[in-house]
Amino acid sequence: MEHMKYIESKKNDEIKQLKKLSATKNIRKTGTYMIEGFHLVREADQYEQKFLKLFVTENYADDRLVKKYYDIATTVSEDVAEEMSETKTPQGIFAVIKVADVEDSPKLSGKWVILDDVQDPGNVGTIVRTADAAGFDGVITSLNSADTYQPKVQRSMQGSQFHLPIYRMDIKKAIKLAQDSSMKVYGSEVDKNAKPYNKLAKADDFALIMGNEAHGVSREVLVNCDENIYIPILGKAESLNVAVAAGVLMYGLQSL
Amino acid sequence: MEHMKYIESKKNDEIKQLKKLSATKNIRKTGTYMIEGFHLVREADQYEQKFLKLFVTENYADDRLVKKYYDIATTVSEDVAEEMSETKTPQGIFAVIKVADVEDSPKLSGKWVILDDVQDPGNVGTIVRTADAAGFDGVITSLNSADTYQPKVQRSMQGSQFHLPIYRMDIKKAIKLAQDSSMKVYGSEVDKNAKPYNKLAKADDFALIMGNEAHGVSREVLVNCDENIYIPILGKAESLNVAVAAGVLMYGLQSL
Repeated sequence: MEHMKYIESKKNDEIKQLKKLSATKNIRKTGTYMIEGFHLVREADQYEQKFLKLFVTENYADDRLVKKYYDIATTVSEDVAEEMSETKTPQGIFAVIKVADVEDSPKLSGKWVILDDVQDPGNVGTIVRTADAAGFDGVITSLNSADTYQPKVQRSMQGSQFHLPIYRMDIKKAIKLAQDSSMKVYGSEVDKNAKPYNKLAKADDFALIMGNEAHGVSREVLVNCDENIYIPILGKAESLNVAVAAGVLMYGLQSL
Repeated sequence: MEHMKYIESKKNDEIKQLKKLSATKNIRKTGTYMIEGFHLVREADQYEQKFLKLFVTENYADDRLVKKYYDIATTVSEDVAEEMSETKTPQGIFAVIKVADVEDSPKLSGKWVILDDVQDPGNVGTIVRTADAAGFDGVITSLNSADTYQPKVQRSMQGSQFHLPIYRMDIKKAIKLAQDSSMKVYGSEVDKNAKPYNKLAKADDFALIMGNEAHGVSREVLVNCDENIYIPILGKAESLNVAVAAGVLMYGLQSL
């Protein structure tokens, strides 16, 4: 067996190109993105994502997963791993993966979350992870939400991105798709005039819309929903963090 | 009326000293901490926190709140505000506040959250904010949890730190205090052998323990709990983010 290709210098051209992959526009342009960390790389492999490249530090060289991708694997120095990493303590394993092909107008069913311009990458990632945990069927992000292929979003999804479909489209189109599929569409808002979430009638197929951190779900969207719901504030806080609110609502609606 | 004191240079000694206040050890040593942003400063004023200093950029100079604290207020340049700020787009208003006096052995009642070494500042802050929203009566953080006076924690609490008591003590002492006050103590874990949270008997007085991001609630703590509970994972995710889990549990236990 030949030795794997080895990159020692962080000034290497290939490494410089890879660093650019964290920018959303380059992800969409190249149709590829990078994930980092053993857990995520293993999940991607297990859920049959298309690997284009694998980069590992020497301590991973004998790993079974790395051997599987031997033909596309490169060993890198600790120095290079630090340069590639988005974290302070890199694990030393990175994969470049093909962006999943997604249908333009998917048929929806079951329980979905739609994000109306949720902009913090940690919030978007955490909501996808929670949707997975709560047994939801998929997530749609509006065009101004944080891109789910961004490294920070990828990291907070913790592998859930491989467990359920994630689409990106205009929010109006998303609502139309859901309603065309006979799903109820619930807008969420911080407004006591909306319906408390735990008073909703149980539904098997619905889409739950979560809004922007500062402005919530836009008025334009709320008027098109079948029902608007809120989480009662029992103390003195003005609102909840959007990822926490999504969790309360997803589990709350699952146990109606 | 005299003009307020004005600081133009970010190399000013007072500003340099203030920058050091974000370090936990200095907060505890000086018994003071800094908060930033209009919303937080207004909440602190409204909930009668003890202001020691106020720093504002010129656009705030005529604000009613600033006039109230005229004697301890200083105007600073935009340059200084940027230097003082923990955010990328500073609002230009900062207050130095006295750390609240807290009893050493408070009497607890009602619904409390106890954090067993929750280390991410955003998670700790978000949990306090959620505890406030969910109508809980207070929060106790273990000695290895992120310090609630840290700027990042202060920011994510969004003013809830002024709405409910937050204590910091050894976790064993916290559990003993709760049990001595006839409260049920619930440990949370990611383990199907624990009890699903929605199957718990309703209780008016209880303490809910949330655990460290990587290791959960420690085994040593779990064995001392009256009941251990979990959030059913309905999909393929391995776990939930701790702040989301806290939200699901707090609202879930409130609606038993």
